[in-house]
Amino acid sequence: MSSNYRNFRNNVPWLILFLEAVFIVLFYFLFSHGDESRSTVSYAAFQDVNHMVIFGFGFFLTFLKRYGFSSTGFNLLIVVLGVQCSVLIENLFYFLLEIPHEDGLKRITKAAVSITAVVISTGAVLGKTNPVQLILMTVVEIIVFHMSRWINRMYLQVPDDVGMMHVHLFGAYFGLAVSSCFPEPSPRSEKNASTPKSALLSMLGTLFLWVFWPSFNSVLSEDKKWEVTYNTYFALAVSAVTAFTFSAMTTKDGKFRMAHIHSAVLAGGVAVGYAANRIRYPWIAMILGLLASVITVLGSYCLQRCLNPALEIHDSSGVHFTFGFPAVLGALAQVVLLVAENGTFLTSLGYSVMFHIGAFCVTISMALITGLITG
Amino acid sequence: MSSNYRNFRNNVPWLILFLEAVFIVLFYFLFSHGDESRSTVSYAAFQDVNHMVIFGFGFFLTFLKRYGFSSTGFNLLIVVLGVQCSVLIENLFYFLLEIPHEDGLKRITKAAVSITAVVISTGAVLGKTNPVQLILMTVVEIIVFHMSRWINRMYLQVPDDVGMMHVHLFGAYFGLAVSSCFPEPSPRSEKNASTPKSALLSMLGTLFLWVFWPSFNSVLSEDKKWEVTYNTYFALAVSAVTAFTFSAMTTKDGKFRMAHIHSAVLAGGVAVGYAANRIRYPWIAMILGLLASVITVLGSYCLQRCLNPALEIHDSSGVHFTFGFPAVLGALAQVVLLVAENGTFLTSLGYSVMFHIGAFCVTISMALITGLITG
Amino acid sequence: MSSNYRNFRNNVPWLILFLEAVFIVLFYFLFSHGDESRSTVSYAAFQDVNHMVIFGFGFFLTFLKRYGFSSTGFNLLIVVLGVQCSVLIENLFYFLLEIPHEDGLKRITKAAVSITAVVISTGAVLGKTNPVQLILMTVVEIIVFHMSRWINRMYLQVPDDVGMMHVHLFGAYFGLAVSSCFPEPSPRSEKNASTPKSALLSMLGTLFLWVFWPSFNSVLSEDKKWEVTYNTYFALAVSAVTAFTFSAMTTKDGKFRMAHIHSAVLAGGVAVGYAANRIRYPWIAMILGLLASVITVLGSYCLQRCLNPALEIHDSSGVHFTFGFPAVLGALAQVVLLVAENGTFLTSLGYSVMFHIGAFCVTISMALITGLITG
Repeated sequence: MSSNYRNFRNNVPWLILFLEAVFIVLFYFLFSHGDESRSTVSYAAFQDVNHMVIFGFGFFLTFLKRYGFSSTGFNLLIVVLGVQCSVLIENLFYFLLEIPHEDGLKRITKAAVSITAVVISTGAVLGKTNPVQLILMTVVEIIVFHMSRWINRMYLQVPDDVGMMHVHLFGAYFGLAVSSCFPEPSPRSEKNASTPKSALLSMLGTLFLWVFWPSFNSVLSEDKKWEVTYNTYFALAVSAVTAFTFSAMTTKDGKFRMAHIHSAVLAGGVAVGYAANRIRYPWIAMILGLLASVITVLGSYCLQRCLNPALEIHDSSGVHFTFGFPAVLGALAQVVLLVAENGTFLTSLGYSVMFHIGAFCVTISMALITGLITG
Repeated sequence: MSSNYRNFRNNVPWLILFLEAVFIVLFYFLFSHGDESRSTVSYAAFQDVNHMVIFGFGFFLTFLKRYGFSSTGFNLLIVVLGVQCSVLIENLFYFLLEIPHEDGLKRITKAAVSITAVVISTGAVLGKTNPVQLILMTVVEIIVFHMSRWINRMYLQVPDDVGMMHVHLFGAYFGLAVSSCFPEPSPRSEKNASTPKSALLSMLGTLFLWVFWPSFNSVLSEDKKWEVTYNTYFALAVSAVTAFTFSAMTTKDGKFRMAHIHSAVLAGGVAVGYAANRIRYPWIAMILGLLASVITVLGSYCLQRCLNPALEIHDSSGVHFTFGFPAVLGALAQVVLLVAENGTFLTSLGYSVMFHIGAFCVTISMALITGLITG
Repeated sequence: MSSNYRNFRNNVPWLILFLEAVFIVLFYFLFSHGDESRSTVSYAAFQDVNHMVIFGFGFFLTFLKRYGFSSTGFNLLIVVLGVQCSVLIENLFYFLLEIPHEDGLKRITKAAVSITAVVISTGAVLGKTNPVQLILMTVVEIIVFHMSRWINRMYLQVPDDVGMMHVHLFGAYFGLAVSSCFPEPSPRSEKNASTPKSALLSMLGTLFLWVFWPSFNSVLSEDKKWEVTYNTYFALAVSAVTAFTFSAMTTKDGKFRMAHIHSAVLAGGVAVGYAANRIRYPWIAMILGLLASVITVLGSYCLQRCLNPALEIHDSSGVHFTFGFPAVLGALAQVVLLVAENGTFLTSLGYSVMFHIGAFCVTISMALITGLITG
């Protein structure tokens, strides 16, 4: 409540207004309607992704008692700013590289998928940042994510729909890096308490994400849309079953613990995202879902005991094990499947490793810079 | 709790049952399935509008503490009665004018869009009417709205999909006129109090409306569906950003105030509804969204201080600035765009002004008659 | 809290894990992707059914105070296990009978529709069973339901989309039979108390079911999809109106009682399910909706006074009158419509009666065996 804080507070509306003015001016120069005759994205699928980003993540993060309204409200603000920013950057790349424009619906859908990275990062820093920091983080993260995606696309020949799936990996580790720059809040503060009611709302968010995940994974894939949908559905199903099982095993009284289910239920969807168009039998997707869920529950069990105190990372809503671990597993599975399929070991492994190192470096270096700017 | 009130109470079921019996008999004579081979309305878009009317408006109005169940329950009852009534009136017009029938899905979708007028009006009189009055208001308003829509269509050559967008304007001012006939409840009564929990539910309703608004605006437009969708999306996005900005500016401590966001977030969608199929660049839609949001926040700020005490209007859920002002702005923007496009100044301005005077007269006179009947 | 109970508790994760392992192994042998080029089921319709099963039934059952999280959580677990089990059994039948495979989306949709039977049964035994019993009941019920459906299809020539609609009948009476094997909980226990907040969540579930019911009824019908949709919509609309009317009539103070509305609103959708593709005028569907709703409200009024104490059935969430009665009415209406249409009295009535006797016998005998196993 110092004058410094009050100063920050007063800057929020002007900062947002300035950003919005810049967006409108840039839209005037950059945006034009493309050819809308045939879109590869159906309107229903776009609405599913839109729902998922607004409702799913909005309520997923309401589990802390004090963040009921802030999280749904800020989530809307961040999504809305991020989508505009994302559409602009995408258009700028298309303009600079002289690639023909995609149709409008696909551009907005891509922007809505990209914004997931920011929303995941927000989960890691929840309760430690003020609005100005969150908004700056949004803009910086969207720009960096698009840069990393274009580097993958131009130099590493990653198809765009697969490259888009790195959104979870990027979001989780960007969020963790930013989070590590902030001092850990005192554990006794009520900010981290959760109530049964907020837990139920959070469960609602989780269910929203669970139901819409097949749409999320399949919306951008150009071919084999159905395979992606089924594989995601079965991976999520096994993931949910495993989440309940291991949650009951790791607790003493054998009851289901909400926090485990909350995170592990979605692990299968994240893990299967990378390789969903390569998996030809559902049992592979099911095993992947099982592994992802096990990693998440065990990860949350170990991490909160050993790793976090050592690295001084405070991870408000567990994005590390909810999105980070399954994404790493998914990327590994993708490489394994590629190898098992056609044995082109050197190239594929090479680019994949290169990509990972690249993405990690960019993420962490940019995250530290952001942390210094906003700190 | 007088015997008069008890009498009203006992009449509710018989009134509803009588209405329903009339509807079934009329359906027997009037309704027949049309040609269903090709519908211009997709089933997914219809479901979006259905969702919006049932969930969005149902929860949008739960922000008063005592109206949690009533508002979702009555909302369902009103929607269901209104849709049947609306389908019947539409069929009657088609029958009398000997126009070939539209397909069933389009008829139900139109009815669902029309019912929005009633739901908006309900927001203005919430907490002041009893069920009998609400049900009578529903039937009267639907009939009057259809009459005004057919007058516009027959005599003023307004296309049907544009004429349908007057639903917000009609709903808001009809509601205000009805509301002005009722005595203002004492400001200290707990009926107008809102709780954090009910505010969160209301936010849920707002988000539902926000997500489904592009479907709502595009569902009935015959051509340029995509342009309408994008323009609405961008207008809503800018509207949401501006709502947060101005909400933080107009409050002393620089915090976001829920009531402002609640209403201003949707202003862009309402304003862009009229002209969405004429806007060719998203930046126009974005500026329209910005203006609509500014008008709404400033309107709510001024109106509650100056105008309402003077005119003795009590507007329970702020429909005047949420739906009334942006609709007026949208109608103006439509005229300006028409003028800017082809300079057919005289005709277009003429019919538009004529229409507005007509709609206003019909609305207010009918509203006063309703007020006297139900008073 | 005896050691017996603790033992049960500890078995839950192992039981689930064992089931999941069996499913993955069976998927390895049985499941293969079919021809996905043209599906008769749209992805949007599948998502509607998925939503309905996860959200609608999940929140429909939250009305007891203590079951907020359990019901949404267990609902997810049961749905996810049941869908996998259902897909496997369906594949096994196709494999054994050497029928060509249907496309994957249709198989998952069918599984999601079948699982409704289990979810309805769960409503009847809510608060009386432990997780092990629920999971065993899920697997047994899915197997028995598929057997009864295949008996109908093979020996009684019931089309598959009509046979699927027996899901409500089967679920309700299976649940009641299982429920009658358990001792009635003491009426004073707080487990059956409901709070205004949980009632609001339950209303949310009811609204979800209400909105998605037209999709549910039409998703599997091969032809006349639109007629099924409209008829269901109008039946639901009249059902909702009648629910409000009779609820106000049967209570002393003329207020709407939530529990009545909760169950009667959906009765029309259940009743119209059987015959929706035969009804050619909406007024028939509307009258069916009216009758279904009347039966439900009166049934709930009488049943709780007379029948339940006599038969010692405790029906936690009223599945008997919510799903049982309207389903019986719907089956009757189907026969009447068949007779009225082409007078093929003997055959149609014959098979229908045969089917009913068969389904009832199978249901009740299997339910008793399940009761003995889990008891």
